[in-house]
Amino acid sequence: MSDNSFGRLLRLTTWGESHGPAIGCVLDGCPPGLAISEEEIREQLLRRATGRSRHTSQRREKDEVRILSGVFEGQTTGTPISLFIENTDARSRDYQNIARQYRPGHADFTYDAKYGVRDYRGGGRSSARETTMRVAAGTIARKWLAQQYGIEIQGWLAQLGPIRTDEVKDWSVVDENPFFSPHAAIVPELEAFMDALRKSGDSVGARVNCLARNVPAGWGEPVYGKLDADLAAAMMSINATKGVEIGAGFDAVAQPGTEHRDILTREGFQSNHAGGVLGGISSGQDVVVSTAFKPTSSLRIPCTSLDADGKEVEVVTKGRHDPCVGIRATPIVEAMMALTLMDHALRHRGQIGT
Amino acid sequence: MSDNSFGRLLRLTTWGESHGPAIGCVLDGCPPGLAISEEEIREQLLRRATGRSRHTSQRREKDEVRILSGVFEGQTTGTPISLFIENTDARSRDYQNIARQYRPGHADFTYDAKYGVRDYRGGGRSSARETTMRVAAGTIARKWLAQQYGIEIQGWLAQLGPIRTDEVKDWSVVDENPFFSPHAAIVPELEAFMDALRKSGDSVGARVNCLARNVPAGWGEPVYGKLDADLAAAMMSINATKGVEIGAGFDAVAQPGTEHRDILTREGFQSNHAGGVLGGISSGQDVVVSTAFKPTSSLRIPCTSLDADGKEVEVVTKGRHDPCVGIRATPIVEAMMALTLMDHALRHRGQIGT
Amino acid sequence: MSDNSFGRLLRLTTWGESHGPAIGCVLDGCPPGLAISEEEIREQLLRRATGRSRHTSQRREKDEVRILSGVFEGQTTGTPISLFIENTDARSRDYQNIARQYRPGHADFTYDAKYGVRDYRGGGRSSARETTMRVAAGTIARKWLAQQYGIEIQGWLAQLGPIRTDEVKDWSVVDENPFFSPHAAIVPELEAFMDALRKSGDSVGARVNCLARNVPAGWGEPVYGKLDADLAAAMMSINATKGVEIGAGFDAVAQPGTEHRDILTREGFQSNHAGGVLGGISSGQDVVVSTAFKPTSSLRIPCTSLDADGKEVEVVTKGRHDPCVGIRATPIVEAMMALTLMDHALRHRGQIGT
Amino acid sequence: MSDNSFGRLLRLTTWGESHGPAIGCVLDGCPPGLAISEEEIREQLLRRATGRSRHTSQRREKDEVRILSGVFEGQTTGTPISLFIENTDARSRDYQNIARQYRPGHADFTYDAKYGVRDYRGGGRSSARETTMRVAAGTIARKWLAQQYGIEIQGWLAQLGPIRTDEVKDWSVVDENPFFSPHAAIVPELEAFMDALRKSGDSVGARVNCLARNVPAGWGEPVYGKLDADLAAAMMSINATKGVEIGAGFDAVAQPGTEHRDILTREGFQSNHAGGVLGGISSGQDVVVSTAFKPTSSLRIPCTSLDADGKEVEVVTKGRHDPCVGIRATPIVEAMMALTLMDHALRHRGQIGT
Repeated sequence: MSDNSFGRLLRLTTWGESHGPAIGCVLDGCPPGLAISEEEIREQLLRRATGRSRHTSQRREKDEVRILSGVFEGQTTGTPISLFIENTDARSRDYQNIARQYRPGHADFTYDAKYGVRDYRGGGRSSARETTMRVAAGTIARKWLAQQYGIEIQGWLAQLGPIRTDEVKDWSVVDENPFFSPHAAIVPELEAFMDALRKSGDSVGARVNCLARNVPAGWGEPVYGKLDADLAAAMMSINATKGVEIGAGFDAVAQPGTEHRDILTREGFQSNHAGGVLGGISSGQDVVVSTAFKPTSSLRIPCTSLDADGKEVEVVTKGRHDPCVGIRATPIVEAMMALTLMDHALRHRGQIGT
Repeated sequence: MSDNSFGRLLRLTTWGESHGPAIGCVLDGCPPGLAISEEEIREQLLRRATGRSRHTSQRREKDEVRILSGVFEGQTTGTPISLFIENTDARSRDYQNIARQYRPGHADFTYDAKYGVRDYRGGGRSSARETTMRVAAGTIARKWLAQQYGIEIQGWLAQLGPIRTDEVKDWSVVDENPFFSPHAAIVPELEAFMDALRKSGDSVGARVNCLARNVPAGWGEPVYGKLDADLAAAMMSINATKGVEIGAGFDAVAQPGTEHRDILTREGFQSNHAGGVLGGISSGQDVVVSTAFKPTSSLRIPCTSLDADGKEVEVVTKGRHDPCVGIRATPIVEAMMALTLMDHALRHRGQIGT
Repeated sequence: MSDNSFGRLLRLTTWGESHGPAIGCVLDGCPPGLAISEEEIREQLLRRATGRSRHTSQRREKDEVRILSGVFEGQTTGTPISLFIENTDARSRDYQNIARQYRPGHADFTYDAKYGVRDYRGGGRSSARETTMRVAAGTIARKWLAQQYGIEIQGWLAQLGPIRTDEVKDWSVVDENPFFSPHAAIVPELEAFMDALRKSGDSVGARVNCLARNVPAGWGEPVYGKLDADLAAAMMSINATKGVEIGAGFDAVAQPGTEHRDILTREGFQSNHAGGVLGGISSGQDVVVSTAFKPTSSLRIPCTSLDADGKEVEVVTKGRHDPCVGIRATPIVEAMMALTLMDHALRHRGQIGT
Repeated sequence: MSDNSFGRLLRLTTWGESHGPAIGCVLDGCPPGLAISEEEIREQLLRRATGRSRHTSQRREKDEVRILSGVFEGQTTGTPISLFIENTDARSRDYQNIARQYRPGHADFTYDAKYGVRDYRGGGRSSARETTMRVAAGTIARKWLAQQYGIEIQGWLAQLGPIRTDEVKDWSVVDENPFFSPHAAIVPELEAFMDALRKSGDSVGARVNCLARNVPAGWGEPVYGKLDADLAAAMMSINATKGVEIGAGFDAVAQPGTEHRDILTREGFQSNHAGGVLGGISSGQDVVVSTAFKPTSSLRIPCTSLDADGKEVEVVTKGRHDPCVGIRATPIVEAMMALTLMDHALRHRGQIGT
């Protein structure tokens, strides 16, 4: 088993290595009749793209996505949708020197432990380049959810290293700064922090929040297919994730029950500590997820590690890397939210019929 | 789809309602030749049992588990293992008055929104009674992992409401107090807190940590079948869970990369911020998971809610409830850890062959 | 993996050995709101029951099925339905002498080769007793299909050893003779044949046909989830099956295309060589499947075989066995047709939404 | 759900339409360390290729398969293998006239009934062009089975229309005639028959047999994951299949049990009516499958049908079509045998560990 697929009825299978000839995915199970174009997908890919600002990796992929199947005369046919991007800016020579070294915090050691062989160039299969395909496929899910149910999905940077930016001041700002911060006034602080960080050669983590509005009550399944369990798996499957919260998350630990329980009146729920999910099933409130990303492991600052022969070596990671992978994670988190919700929409229709 | 199954190669399917005639499960995929007895399962069930102390629900189930298939002359045969417990202490009359009310924080509203019909007695399918079967099946997984790989799984209460008990003072204490606290000196404080809480009629949440020792490097799958993604889904599928962390978890957000990356030397890893998983694959370090449980929603303290006709009603939850569901969660978390690891052990063997 | 489950959205998991304390199943994914009673299931079990005539095994199971979950106040709730039957007439002593012998034509040898251990009593897990649960669960699927779509499922004995009875003379006769023959005049011939066979100690095979009327056009999936591929797997999963045909089946090999293609006019299709499936998707015509059952392998007539030590032994199978397992297969084939169709109904609704 | 995937641990997902820009597949779960080249895959594709003789379609695809991922420095890495072929000889104009017509025997009507939209060019997704990817992926499975277990897979044409060629005279002949006949003397008769058929404008069906040697005893799963059930689904999922037999198949119906049961002595089994599978598990004998293919539905001979508006039309199928699709089916049947066996090899290893 090697499980490069996500979802049950809407099933995404991704393939490709960071420095292979191409990457791609197959999205199977999409209903017929949805209008979708390569242009719409490219727009979302641009949001995630490297080279978008000085704060992210300078690898410049054009990400010219092609739709190779499943769309005919501009609309989905119900057959599998194949998306395809050639890798054009892969500089594999950057990696030759670490072919047999285990970069700390990376999957080099564990891939070797598992497979005994790996494509070391740019992390191969473990590279965040794979997430391009999540965003590409997520674009389709997102559009379908919007058309069928009016669902809106919005992610934002809630914390960058020590700087918390949870509070949403203005949604419209999110896409107007390279951090996806909903707080315009804090952007200069973020920029200064990142400039200093880049200079230092170190990295930090980030927290990305995401909500979905207008999710109908009733999606999700009671026990092992809980909507929140699937969202947790979705987010934890993104590279560098170390934690996931639904609604109040870890704050619920110290809350008294009288505070946590969301009172329901004729005007609707009076709070949303549950994060839109009760008993694994959506309640009609906003579905709210928070995801923790660890700091980038690829650092210029050298450190000791082992090589494949068990010898100690000094590792310095060259190449072009984001000092904070979480900055570009917002569109990826949104995509995983969209794919999970659409999968559950189809699963719900299957059993309930509406 | 109604997805009452967990796992790919080791597949647990549970069934049963809180106040139905019985609950049970089918554990499919267990290798043949494992010695297992009803007595061993009962021992684990006792750890989770209600009525164990004055701090948990006074419902007294004997949980006389029976093995109905898959075990012959004391050992597993490789065919599905059916476990079965009659419900003997179900007092359904406690629930008649809330048959059409939506208890806040419970799944009553969302089940009705989804299915249009529900067994309201004791929460029916959404009751934590289902977790009995996780513990029962988990006993088998746990024994197999111990025998095959020497794996040890240990959970503990890391926080109860505002009281943090993260620090492990003495593993041997964990099973000697009703809280699964690894810190004997703190137990009186926990008792006093719970006594006051019970008197107040309110409830709190809890955080339960769990680690697995001796997990071989190489288990897990790179992208969507990541070991940590499956652990996140496993924990989030437990009733009342609101958050999951692997290793440093949300603390990783503010960590610099130079601190977070776990240096690997000839003596092994020098820290374990990763929580034993790199790139979705086990590294050979302890696998460490932390899970947040929300406060119990069933409270004597009345509050407003709606009934099935959309009328506002005052809800008071009688019945016998734990003021902190997290107290009994430790054996459940351990069981989900065991089931997830064993599933991945089999998946790894399937692809890699060893 | 041990894969004791069938179906994707409607998922049947069976458990139990022939001579264990009980057998049972979990049917997961059934929509809520379907009225179903133990009585309705028992009726179908009676059709399959042993001891129904002198032509089938004299083991007399009462098959007192119990519904243990998933049904509340007489109707399904959408949660997993647990069905349960105690084994009451299991005479295990009949099997002690063959505990270590490999009965020819049976799964004794292959189970040992795979698992190294097996419950030999009555064939254990490989016994046709497992099919009881297919019929039990199939009753639910059948009722749902009838209510939702007016679908009727009808099986019949099309061949018994050398005697072909394909031609359907009168549907109403099928349930009025112990052979499920649609041809009253042939029944005495079948009886005489079976009497002679029983006397001889030998056995024969059978062919069972089955059709489903009123299946809407559009069910099934194009490539690997073809309706006919799933039906083939469904039928081939029944004990003793050796072949499956859809529509014209093997006769299609010698047909010219001009004969095989079913002409479509305003009055509908003019023939049904396709058996109701085109490109894996139902066409709205009757779905027609034919299934071949091998002769019973349990014979009084001795023969040579090996035991677990590799020594040659003479095997005589005592116990109470059907000289033609195919006779009782008709309700089982119908059940598998119902389960497969209902699964596809839900899958279709999931993707297409109607 | 749209289920374009096959297998559990070795999972093939195919995508692409007959006249789209490309077709491809993702093979997930292949163990690492298998040497494989594009050249080896092309060799198998040539066996299936159109334009191979005057008896098959004159569409000439070069089928220049590319490996885009999962293979590094000539060997598999354990990550998903993406295979890719551009469609170069797609003459879509041939199909414009039937864009809204339902060709009899084709999936046009059922796709429209299901999806309401379809890529009509060359049958779109329902085209046998999809089987290219089965053969491509099957090459990998075949090589792995040969290396790991010495398994040999051999298919052959057993019947062409009325001409039976079951008897295998000489295995070496199979690949030396365009029919995959194991009977050199019969080839002129087959050629004459096909020449006459082509002249007539009509078509016929075919029966293709396939066996696998050296399959270890113990593969397969007892109930719903039976090896023969999965083989039946595998074969029935190939375009134009109408029937599947294991071992004696439908002949078992008339066999007495004393003839059918394969006696086991110290010299091994004395016959193979079971076709190498007992109780769903391989016995160590040759696994033998027979598959029926219907006659090609695309005929020059006109006939009545309906169009999308329900009006009667005369349909004549132009384009380049095989008068007997079964002729080219042999490599496809072999590929499905290989994929099914390898999947079961991995599943067996997962549960049993060897």
